[in-house]
Amino acid sequence: MGQKLPWRIVAEWITEGEACIRSVEKVYAAGATKFQEYLIGELAGIGKSLVLDGKVQSSLFDEHWYHEALVHPIMIAHECPKDVLIIGGGEGATAREVLKHKCVEQVVMVDIDAELIELAKKYLPEWHQGAFDNEKLKLVLDDGRKFLSTTDMEFDIVILDLVDPMEGGPAALLYTLEFYRLVSRVLKPGGAMVTQASSPILTPRVYATIRNTIASVFNITRPYITYVRSYNGVWGFVAASNSIDPSNLSPDAVDKLIKERIRGELRFYDGVTHQWMFTLPKPIRSILDSYNDVATDSNPIYVPV
Amino acid sequence: MGQKLPWRIVAEWITEGEACIRSVEKVYAAGATKFQEYLIGELAGIGKSLVLDGKVQSSLFDEHWYHEALVHPIMIAHECPKDVLIIGGGEGATAREVLKHKCVEQVVMVDIDAELIELAKKYLPEWHQGAFDNEKLKLVLDDGRKFLSTTDMEFDIVILDLVDPMEGGPAALLYTLEFYRLVSRVLKPGGAMVTQASSPILTPRVYATIRNTIASVFNITRPYITYVRSYNGVWGFVAASNSIDPSNLSPDAVDKLIKERIRGELRFYDGVTHQWMFTLPKPIRSILDSYNDVATDSNPIYVPV
Amino acid sequence: MGQKLPWRIVAEWITEGEACIRSVEKVYAAGATKFQEYLIGELAGIGKSLVLDGKVQSSLFDEHWYHEALVHPIMIAHECPKDVLIIGGGEGATAREVLKHKCVEQVVMVDIDAELIELAKKYLPEWHQGAFDNEKLKLVLDDGRKFLSTTDMEFDIVILDLVDPMEGGPAALLYTLEFYRLVSRVLKPGGAMVTQASSPILTPRVYATIRNTIASVFNITRPYITYVRSYNGVWGFVAASNSIDPSNLSPDAVDKLIKERIRGELRFYDGVTHQWMFTLPKPIRSILDSYNDVATDSNPIYVPV
Amino acid sequence: MGQKLPWRIVAEWITEGEACIRSVEKVYAAGATKFQEYLIGELAGIGKSLVLDGKVQSSLFDEHWYHEALVHPIMIAHECPKDVLIIGGGEGATAREVLKHKCVEQVVMVDIDAELIELAKKYLPEWHQGAFDNEKLKLVLDDGRKFLSTTDMEFDIVILDLVDPMEGGPAALLYTLEFYRLVSRVLKPGGAMVTQASSPILTPRVYATIRNTIASVFNITRPYITYVRSYNGVWGFVAASNSIDPSNLSPDAVDKLIKERIRGELRFYDGVTHQWMFTLPKPIRSILDSYNDVATDSNPIYVPV
Repeated sequence: MGQKLPWRIVAEWITEGEACIRSVEKVYAAGATKFQEYLIGELAGIGKSLVLDGKVQSSLFDEHWYHEALVHPIMIAHECPKDVLIIGGGEGATAREVLKHKCVEQVVMVDIDAELIELAKKYLPEWHQGAFDNEKLKLVLDDGRKFLSTTDMEFDIVILDLVDPMEGGPAALLYTLEFYRLVSRVLKPGGAMVTQASSPILTPRVYATIRNTIASVFNITRPYITYVRSYNGVWGFVAASNSIDPSNLSPDAVDKLIKERIRGELRFYDGVTHQWMFTLPKPIRSILDSYNDVATDSNPIYVPV
Repeated sequence: MGQKLPWRIVAEWITEGEACIRSVEKVYAAGATKFQEYLIGELAGIGKSLVLDGKVQSSLFDEHWYHEALVHPIMIAHECPKDVLIIGGGEGATAREVLKHKCVEQVVMVDIDAELIELAKKYLPEWHQGAFDNEKLKLVLDDGRKFLSTTDMEFDIVILDLVDPMEGGPAALLYTLEFYRLVSRVLKPGGAMVTQASSPILTPRVYATIRNTIASVFNITRPYITYVRSYNGVWGFVAASNSIDPSNLSPDAVDKLIKERIRGELRFYDGVTHQWMFTLPKPIRSILDSYNDVATDSNPIYVPV
Repeated sequence: MGQKLPWRIVAEWITEGEACIRSVEKVYAAGATKFQEYLIGELAGIGKSLVLDGKVQSSLFDEHWYHEALVHPIMIAHECPKDVLIIGGGEGATAREVLKHKCVEQVVMVDIDAELIELAKKYLPEWHQGAFDNEKLKLVLDDGRKFLSTTDMEFDIVILDLVDPMEGGPAALLYTLEFYRLVSRVLKPGGAMVTQASSPILTPRVYATIRNTIASVFNITRPYITYVRSYNGVWGFVAASNSIDPSNLSPDAVDKLIKERIRGELRFYDGVTHQWMFTLPKPIRSILDSYNDVATDSNPIYVPV
Repeated sequence: MGQKLPWRIVAEWITEGEACIRSVEKVYAAGATKFQEYLIGELAGIGKSLVLDGKVQSSLFDEHWYHEALVHPIMIAHECPKDVLIIGGGEGATAREVLKHKCVEQVVMVDIDAELIELAKKYLPEWHQGAFDNEKLKLVLDDGRKFLSTTDMEFDIVILDLVDPMEGGPAALLYTLEFYRLVSRVLKPGGAMVTQASSPILTPRVYATIRNTIASVFNITRPYITYVRSYNGVWGFVAASNSIDPSNLSPDAVDKLIKERIRGELRFYDGVTHQWMFTLPKPIRSILDSYNDVATDSNPIYVPV
């Protein structure tokens, strides 16, 4: 026993009866916005973290694993992305990574939770690193789906940086066939999209269904994975386009493109890492082969809660 | 599994490897003052609560068990307490109970943590119920021991509403022989004191030592107990005086005095409850008989942490 | 961090989102009988313990608080109990306490779980202390209710040492009006019964309903309480008879009877402890006054699980 | 709340204040051998599992991820391994995988914990699948290091399937320079070794030091990784030899060799999986570059406990 035993604990329930618990060593802010409960604090093992509705969204320990894995493969695979749309991404770190690309002229970021963005601006400077003040960033406080339905704008890249699809949650209908058609609608010719896609190990049916659903809309669909300790395991993404295939890029090609087109340093992403992410081990391929489900507005897919 | 599984948890470590964990269903305030870490929130089972450094200080579920047990036995046993000193008691609930006594003309409350008092004023109205605005209350933001050493005031009753003695904690030297001599110094003739005295079951040596130490200073020393769910068990107190013995009062006598001298309603304390608290079951008496320790400034007693 | 952090933990869920967790420092036996899951091991804080279906049944730390509180008040209040029936009591500690009374000629113990009794004989010698080998003890491996319905025997005292009433549990219908009528049927004239009665604080409606239900069958019904750390709080009992009132006994009378009639030493029970248990503090009396429910076979009462 | 909340919990402390907790839904066996505490039971999320000293050793959910990753890359890279030594591997699953290779003529398995092997034979048939009865397997109940020092035998492959190096633990000195020299001593010309190597993310210094230490003894040292949910993350291995380099094998070459040389089905390992494991993402490469430590008997490396 001792002073070191945790008294404030965050528990992430992974399955029924299985949780990752972390001591909250310091609290920066805690409460609820109109949309979700939040905690910004120092967590044992992973450091400063943002927790929403009991799920670690990102931590200083490895937010770069997640955000670089989400942003760069599809951005690098595109010839020269000028107009980028981010849906979600409240911490500002996705915008930060997008803005490292010299091609980028405009980033539109649509997030529904204005209070959360204010908290991020105030408490998460290590995440946004000034991205909110970048004149190329246009922040839209709105529902992402509503924005897609009504905007006249077109984009080279759409990045979906969302919470998992949960019944009643803010992203419940941001993983359906109808939604991806709306994404397709705002893409310029030669454009591409990428989405986070839940955990292939913990919620395999969700991961496979997101892949299947996107594959119903786009010609080229490429699931890939990384590992994120803060998310308690392997994490999945899906990139899609009618013309771009990021999985074709060799490590050397990726490294050359990084050098040419990216300002500043990357801590996670490079050519070999790119290859690692698009190389799926046999059990992950088996999971992708095991489900035929497609999510629709009337029959969506949810992670269990 | 389900939405109901806790994600924000407060764990109170009782002994090495033994803890009471409670879900934090809502956070009102969380952070740190100059002296301690705090959490004000809704806790599973016990409702709205104040937690300091990982210990539940009081909850709406049973703060009345604790505060009425602390205040009324010694106040009722005194002929007519006019001047009352409270050391600690930041929530304002001890002052609230003291102010119910019609005899009381002045309550001096000395608490070291000004930030905590501001939090209590703002977030704990159910505790203080306006006590901080009562013109009879004089709030002194100072170290309790320093106040006792330097004040010229004298009191009929001194109430010690402190956190447990912990090494390095704010109450480390507020349970020693030298401290109780300072208490004795500010008592009027016929005056009396009472202190919370930790858990007789969980920290028996601390409880017995507090009793022994007080018995070295006063002629009449009366340990008594109640139960406080929020403190995970039986809770101990010690009342002392050179002339007053609260354990002598019959249930009927107590009920008569309550009727005459107390304004408003009591939810915990009455004559039978008084008798219950001063009737110690055999194992508690055995504990009190098992230790001869006396705590001094050079050899204080601490609860394990 | 350190070796001392628990890895095997027993969590007792008290309410939704509130639990007491204890490290299992050593496992003596773990598995399942036909009726329940069991763990016999060393638990942090309370030592060697029997856990059934996730509930600590008793521990070396304070099994004497529970078993002496259950057995002695009603046994002492009876003129001279010769024939005693125990329903439940698998550890053998209730029989151990009954057998300390010199009057006792025969103890019939009816427990449904033969496997558990074998485990108790093997692993819990500190509990039974040879009671299972006492020639006055007659062990019946049967359902308690069925035994009551069919036996021709009559008893001076019936002791109900049961698990709490849980839906689908082995004691689901051992707290109903019909059940207490069966108990009444096997009592000799002048006989009395006692039952454990759950926690007045944690399950107040269950506690009050057990009292009410028993009061529908017997002329004299006396709820009383003690504290059991291993049960996480105050614990309730109800004694009942058509002629005996244990609450009338003075501390001195109890102490005299103990001296005359009990062999061996008691660690918890004496005259003052007797008075303490029958003195109910105001909130407990308020709880008893708050519920009119009576449990019947068609409308039983259960603790939430 | 409900029946589903866990009451028997296994907590794996990952760092100070960070743990993965899993409900134990069923206990098959629990106790202690001469060397370690064990639990064999059904764990939430990962199913039937073996837990030693609070660490999940393997689970039915993904023991094939671990055991196939440990055994096959180096076995496939060798021309034709006939004599194989396993140190550790008590569950029998490493032997099971080795025995799938048609070249294999003899497997010597040296494990110090005879009681654990008996438990594995009885309770873990899904792991060993009869391997203990295979006439090619020779089981030696001895200390692995002592065996290496004294044996006259020589091996094509040595597989180190050990618990992490912990101070005072059974594998404390099975990760040092002196130990790997002993391994080298028993290798035939053209032989190779592989060891599990702890978590690159959670204990990076241990992982890098194991790599460095092995690289001090062998000409070719190849760290590789997989993911094991039951171990709470990315898991590391190191393969080494004076002549064999498994990282050179193309996916097609691996698939061809599997077809030719392996009996039965593999669930995890194939050519693409081989490539995935030897492709290290940038942060893992950075970790390997960050430490120069070499572990010796007088200055060993330990995981924190």
